[in-house]
Amino acid sequence: MTYQEAANLLKEQDHILILTHRRPDGDTIGCGAALCLGLRQMGKEAFLQENEEAHGLFAPYMEGLLAPSDFAPHFIVTVDTADWDLAPNSVHTLYEGRVDLCIDHHRSSTLYGKKNCIDPECAACGELIYQILNELTSITPEIARLLYLAISTDTGCFIFSNTTAKTHRITAALFEIGCDHQQINKLHFRTKTLKRLKIEGHLVETMTLLHGGKTAIAVIPRSLMEALGATEEDVDNIAAFLEQIEGVQNAATIRELEHGECKISLRSDGELNASDVCALLGGGGHRAAAGCSLFGSTDEAKAAIIRSIDTILGSEEHKG
Amino acid sequence: MTYQEAANLLKEQDHILILTHRRPDGDTIGCGAALCLGLRQMGKEAFLQENEEAHGLFAPYMEGLLAPSDFAPHFIVTVDTADWDLAPNSVHTLYEGRVDLCIDHHRSSTLYGKKNCIDPECAACGELIYQILNELTSITPEIARLLYLAISTDTGCFIFSNTTAKTHRITAALFEIGCDHQQINKLHFRTKTLKRLKIEGHLVETMTLLHGGKTAIAVIPRSLMEALGATEEDVDNIAAFLEQIEGVQNAATIRELEHGECKISLRSDGELNASDVCALLGGGGHRAAAGCSLFGSTDEAKAAIIRSIDTILGSEEHKG
Repeated sequence: MTYQEAANLLKEQDHILILTHRRPDGDTIGCGAALCLGLRQMGKEAFLQENEEAHGLFAPYMEGLLAPSDFAPHFIVTVDTADWDLAPNSVHTLYEGRVDLCIDHHRSSTLYGKKNCIDPECAACGELIYQILNELTSITPEIARLLYLAISTDTGCFIFSNTTAKTHRITAALFEIGCDHQQINKLHFRTKTLKRLKIEGHLVETMTLLHGGKTAIAVIPRSLMEALGATEEDVDNIAAFLEQIEGVQNAATIRELEHGECKISLRSDGELNASDVCALLGGGGHRAAAGCSLFGSTDEAKAAIIRSIDTILGSEEHKG
Repeated sequence: MTYQEAANLLKEQDHILILTHRRPDGDTIGCGAALCLGLRQMGKEAFLQENEEAHGLFAPYMEGLLAPSDFAPHFIVTVDTADWDLAPNSVHTLYEGRVDLCIDHHRSSTLYGKKNCIDPECAACGELIYQILNELTSITPEIARLLYLAISTDTGCFIFSNTTAKTHRITAALFEIGCDHQQINKLHFRTKTLKRLKIEGHLVETMTLLHGGKTAIAVIPRSLMEALGATEEDVDNIAAFLEQIEGVQNAATIRELEHGECKISLRSDGELNASDVCALLGGGGHRAAAGCSLFGSTDEAKAAIIRSIDTILGSEEHKG
């Protein structure tokens, strides 16, 4: 359905519960909180479902909005959630098949809602929520701040290739409303933990460069994570780090996990198809970003990914 | 004068030379090249003055636009240049007092042109050039790309606090024209040299944290720069690096230069006034970013800046 139809549907509802997705990011949290505030402003009872995986940076945006444990919703909305399996564990069984409206921007949406409002042209789900709320209520500076959180985090602060004219036009409108973008930019784009910086330093010092500097491979050993007391938050999106090195087109980052498992993330912005490489090792993904898991030592994982990259580069040369 | 008046003035001129500023950045190069292309599109003869300091990343944007050595301009324009002393050495004496139109966004402009079109509300001079060109000619995708270069680099890709609703609105218009933002974002915001990353790693590994982690101080010794073969380009804006560490409010970066000179850059986003600290050491700047130079060892420079920070923190506590 269109965003106008979604707005009309929401207008008629009350006692609304909003669900965010697993491993929540700024887009799902910003959308959920903005929609919740907007609906409350219309006089409705609306809550955000608690998300047990919402970590330190994102939890504060949900404050005061969380549903009490005895809340019995009449209408359930998901935001930025492409598939029901991405719903948080705590409600996965309880609300299965009960989503009334799914609002999302993923082309891959499995349309699991009774109604689905999907716009893959939006860089962030926040753009869609902006358009819906614009039909329903006045967008306050606080709602604008939450929508700015959604849009800026899903576009890497307007750096990613998903950014469009509409992204900038909506952001201009949010600035005019008076959203506090400075605090969000500082917190989400201009702050790194010391642990993160030490891990990045380790990657630079220990990586292997191959193919005349086009391929970079580095390992994050468990011992390093433990020595630093680092958490998942400290290595969030770490696979993008090696990719920024001048001249590097293929970047593989190997994380040593528990029980002898190694997780490999491969990024490529050159001729290499990362998905083809990871498929050779039982993984998958997209051309530009793919992954796989192996059991063995980090040295074995490193040898395996190098072999697979060489195989695919060889076959691509062959094709050419 | 207003941007409409500047546009009207340019309409009447021909044989135009455009000057960029010393230590050129994306804003001055993007503005100069965009204006040059726009004026040529109007059928005028227009050139960019060569800028001997335009380094690797920015030089390509000037290709095909540079004035031949025998060009005798009838009208001289500067872009993004707050003071005549910021004009490149090669033309400083030759064109002194001869600037017909100064187009700039610095509040501190010394109004050295015969006419001056200054708008400090613009985050980048590129916003002003966009408005002027919009009055004069059609903005092609290539002109839009150069204006995007100007605007994105002067706002740190929309992260800095100078970014406004107008910045985003103009950028939306540039996207609609079809500027190639992806290539610019990749080159200017998603690429770091390996040398730069090694210097950043050195800062993390060797820095001193004081005041419960609020103050970070690090040294870049000449020996490191020499061992890496690093250039000024590799340490561009390096003072901002320590500032991003979670919890750090005051960040001092000490560069060891030649002849026993140490250059100290101090950033503060907390209660410390960086300008007051650097004034104690004969330097100056703004509250959030200041600098000074000392002669002596890096250890002496480090001791001096710590002492000065403590003095100012002490006096600020005293005031409080």
